[in-house]
Amino acid sequence: MEFRLTGLVAATFTPMRDDGSLHLDRVGPMVDRLIADGIAAFYVCGSTGEGPLMTVEEREATAAAFVGAAAGRIPVVVQVGHSSLADARRLAGHAQTIGADAISAVAPYYFKPDSVAVLVDCLAEIAAAAPELPFYYYHIPSITGVDLDLGELLRRGAEKLPTLVGIKHTSALMNEAQALRHIAGGRYDVLHGRDEMLLAGMATGASGAVGSTYNFAAPLYHRLIIAMDSGDVEEARRCQGLSVAMIHGILKGWGQAGLKATMSLVGPDCGPTRLPLVSLSPEQTTELRRSLESIGFFDWGR
Amino acid sequence: MEFRLTGLVAATFTPMRDDGSLHLDRVGPMVDRLIADGIAAFYVCGSTGEGPLMTVEEREATAAAFVGAAAGRIPVVVQVGHSSLADARRLAGHAQTIGADAISAVAPYYFKPDSVAVLVDCLAEIAAAAPELPFYYYHIPSITGVDLDLGELLRRGAEKLPTLVGIKHTSALMNEAQALRHIAGGRYDVLHGRDEMLLAGMATGASGAVGSTYNFAAPLYHRLIIAMDSGDVEEARRCQGLSVAMIHGILKGWGQAGLKATMSLVGPDCGPTRLPLVSLSPEQTTELRRSLESIGFFDWGR
Amino acid sequence: MEFRLTGLVAATFTPMRDDGSLHLDRVGPMVDRLIADGIAAFYVCGSTGEGPLMTVEEREATAAAFVGAAAGRIPVVVQVGHSSLADARRLAGHAQTIGADAISAVAPYYFKPDSVAVLVDCLAEIAAAAPELPFYYYHIPSITGVDLDLGELLRRGAEKLPTLVGIKHTSALMNEAQALRHIAGGRYDVLHGRDEMLLAGMATGASGAVGSTYNFAAPLYHRLIIAMDSGDVEEARRCQGLSVAMIHGILKGWGQAGLKATMSLVGPDCGPTRLPLVSLSPEQTTELRRSLESIGFFDWGR
Amino acid sequence: MEFRLTGLVAATFTPMRDDGSLHLDRVGPMVDRLIADGIAAFYVCGSTGEGPLMTVEEREATAAAFVGAAAGRIPVVVQVGHSSLADARRLAGHAQTIGADAISAVAPYYFKPDSVAVLVDCLAEIAAAAPELPFYYYHIPSITGVDLDLGELLRRGAEKLPTLVGIKHTSALMNEAQALRHIAGGRYDVLHGRDEMLLAGMATGASGAVGSTYNFAAPLYHRLIIAMDSGDVEEARRCQGLSVAMIHGILKGWGQAGLKATMSLVGPDCGPTRLPLVSLSPEQTTELRRSLESIGFFDWGR
Repeated sequence: MEFRLTGLVAATFTPMRDDGSLHLDRVGPMVDRLIADGIAAFYVCGSTGEGPLMTVEEREATAAAFVGAAAGRIPVVVQVGHSSLADARRLAGHAQTIGADAISAVAPYYFKPDSVAVLVDCLAEIAAAAPELPFYYYHIPSITGVDLDLGELLRRGAEKLPTLVGIKHTSALMNEAQALRHIAGGRYDVLHGRDEMLLAGMATGASGAVGSTYNFAAPLYHRLIIAMDSGDVEEARRCQGLSVAMIHGILKGWGQAGLKATMSLVGPDCGPTRLPLVSLSPEQTTELRRSLESIGFFDWGR
Repeated sequence: MEFRLTGLVAATFTPMRDDGSLHLDRVGPMVDRLIADGIAAFYVCGSTGEGPLMTVEEREATAAAFVGAAAGRIPVVVQVGHSSLADARRLAGHAQTIGADAISAVAPYYFKPDSVAVLVDCLAEIAAAAPELPFYYYHIPSITGVDLDLGELLRRGAEKLPTLVGIKHTSALMNEAQALRHIAGGRYDVLHGRDEMLLAGMATGASGAVGSTYNFAAPLYHRLIIAMDSGDVEEARRCQGLSVAMIHGILKGWGQAGLKATMSLVGPDCGPTRLPLVSLSPEQTTELRRSLESIGFFDWGR
Repeated sequence: MEFRLTGLVAATFTPMRDDGSLHLDRVGPMVDRLIADGIAAFYVCGSTGEGPLMTVEEREATAAAFVGAAAGRIPVVVQVGHSSLADARRLAGHAQTIGADAISAVAPYYFKPDSVAVLVDCLAEIAAAAPELPFYYYHIPSITGVDLDLGELLRRGAEKLPTLVGIKHTSALMNEAQALRHIAGGRYDVLHGRDEMLLAGMATGASGAVGSTYNFAAPLYHRLIIAMDSGDVEEARRCQGLSVAMIHGILKGWGQAGLKATMSLVGPDCGPTRLPLVSLSPEQTTELRRSLESIGFFDWGR
Repeated sequence: MEFRLTGLVAATFTPMRDDGSLHLDRVGPMVDRLIADGIAAFYVCGSTGEGPLMTVEEREATAAAFVGAAAGRIPVVVQVGHSSLADARRLAGHAQTIGADAISAVAPYYFKPDSVAVLVDCLAEIAAAAPELPFYYYHIPSITGVDLDLGELLRRGAEKLPTLVGIKHTSALMNEAQALRHIAGGRYDVLHGRDEMLLAGMATGASGAVGSTYNFAAPLYHRLIIAMDSGDVEEARRCQGLSVAMIHGILKGWGQAGLKATMSLVGPDCGPTRLPLVSLSPEQTTELRRSLESIGFFDWGR
């Protein structure tokens, strides 16, 4: 199977009401705005989307809302990873049923696979539940603690994972990503996964990138990409510098929840995060807005 | 709320068929045998029970099977922790409905609480869904990566967690457990959680212990407890030495799955483990049996 | 070679002047007092003694001062580990020359051995420089990051380390220590290394223990040992409980430097610690004294 | 103080004889060849140079040999970090005496500073021993375990470290390096420290880079730099791809010692590594040569 994502893939936020319930009416406007922003695809129910903090039913409803709203305009990838492979299989099957374009899954994260062979067996169980959909392994060792040899994963996957099309590589190791892009004659799509290092990713060969800050600062990143494509590394570096200042500011002050709060400032309002992510208070939101203003975010971010 | 568990609490295995589905017919005989063995309580759907590898529905069915089979003879604690607090709340509510005696939960393990205050907020959400049931925090940092100050947890919990009765302390830090037993005038029950160090746990003040090997070697551990209670530390040490040899042998050769395979050798047959735990092949099971025989397990274990 | 340490081994502090230079005049009175306290041996230039924070010349001078002051009354073990094996060898040779009773060494801690075979080769280089002295491997993974299979270490050491007599086991894994005591028919001496878990160590078979708090609270620990030897686990637990309160209080408030400051309160004055350990200010020392008073340390510690 | 390194800085190997003693006669030819290769500066006695595996005297002799051989043609930076600050101070003073151009130091790595304030105090002790020499903090958390906020380090350093000129940043976090380059109006020099990510480093603003593979593959990296400077990212990526293949091949097969063995293949012969780094056997060296041939190293590396 071949599948490739090029450009900015938004790891979408999941809109919620103040009581923590899903607010899926907000998905339509969000999707329209992101498509208008030039986003190339959606990555739904990942870390940004609080997938692992939702019930299976909520994840299914969220995925369906995004697939419905996208309406074929741009691809939707549904993240189906779970500590329970039975749940992951159910989510994979559902994604295929609703017409998602691809699935992706993190490694099981309660008990963790202790070898590539076991990891591939886990992923094969998941992928087999959506045999028509391209499959991306979602590599994010900082959260899952699973940090196995990805080259070996691709080589074993070539035999055992017929739908494997690539890796969402959420790691700072650009050399690893670069090496992976050469395996099997470039057969696999290695998506860049660290917004604050997009420039480094593109320099080393990424053509697609998945991230949370593309939701609210796509124009900035598009300038970066255009600059890079035209060989203007200096301008690309200037854009990345703004992105780094933005991301460090958001995460240092408010952690992961700061990202969703920033999205709400730009609109549409996505509501609170779920525990253990701690939502910003109204005072903190005001402070976040001021902090973003102080670096000019509302000028260059959009 | 006050609640206390004394003696050996079996962290029960969940019987499965060869195809990986639940085999709950096996629960009844298993429960009878464990009660006959002198087990003091059951801890269901924990790590040993593969709780986080099961769907919510499967966890509910498993909990119900154990509560039903125990039939009030000994207490049943249901582990309801989940990466999704919504699922944990559902499991907690279900446990109360079916008449479980207590609940317990690990910290959320995808995103992780980064302070005691956040962890307590997470646990409060779960505990509030079963307001009539005693609640144990399940501390197992080797798996969850959550290793926050447990003294502060108990102190904050005294205000915010009205049903908190203690901690299942799966850690080698006996000094930590010992200190926790003195907080709030000994109000909290700190359960020992490392079978291979039961002697050390008892020496430092544990009166209840939760573990997987109590399922298949309760007689050995009862000898240890009796020796310790009568001040015969040397005999207790001899028993613990056998336990250490048994556990190191099982885990070194076959990992976590070796424990379930050992249970099946003793009976009843509990079937395979789920991925990412890798079940033993028939050849490996034969080798496991031989290895256990070579240390005399079938003589002193039972 | 056979060698065994029984009872409390003081991991000695190294007395320093306010300008950070060695104050070896203080060694004599300290040694006399510790011997009067019933200390069984000295472990010099270890972590407590700030060995790795001193120059080779200073370590040699310190070792010589302790050997001289002990004057054969009780054994002196010199810790000679270093990130540079050449320096470790020099220290080992010096220890033999001055008449130390044994040496000990941590694993190299800049680059780290990545297998037991390599670790044994490293230790063999060191041990060979003091061929007449018994050698203890100093296992302290929390500092060195070296956490290899100690059973395999003893088995390989039996061939390659003729002077190996045991391990200073600074780890909470009592089950590991217990298993090690059975290797090679009990040939090796496994010294307990966590004061706050001495009771657990003794319960699982330790007869010797090395630690920093034995310098200033030997009477308490002797009560613990006597209680344990007479089968009075409850009294031993009471003593350990006091020790736990003392150690948690010291470390939580002031870190490693708090231990040396506590020694100075009891006497003789040992002066400041070296960076990166941060010495207590006079105000902090006053606060430390008050904190120790509040738990009755000056009554039961001595 | 201002100081800046531009271009490729060779983290030099330390030539040794088969018996492990220094072979400083080899330094002259090595220095000449590296200068002929266009190397911009030397970084001596770092991790590549096995500085922490040598005695203080050996480190002094090695530093003097490089300073003498360079003879002012290109700058020499001497790495003086040590677990003992007293030794680090001695090395720093010596570096100034022999006319080195700058010094650099890792954080203390036995006990580790637990805050930026303490780290800065440690570095201030070292830097003060060479008050005329520019000072680089050597950040390498993968080895030292010290991973503190570098932005805060530069801000505090501005007050307390008058000779601080920058950081040798041996980390994959390009976003961190990029942010550091903007602190204090670009006052500090942030040297790139991961050869396998040089392209990513340059893209995000590095103008100087320190590494071990620049010793034996400078021509390849110069092609990369020229390509990058002329906006030919694709050619730069091709060069980096070859570098990645080379480095992964060397490290996967033979670890850190493989780098020194590769240097010896290119010349001059640098001899063995010291334990705990394990030198290659003659058979392994042959295999290394073949492996490098198979990727064309001897064509494009030089």
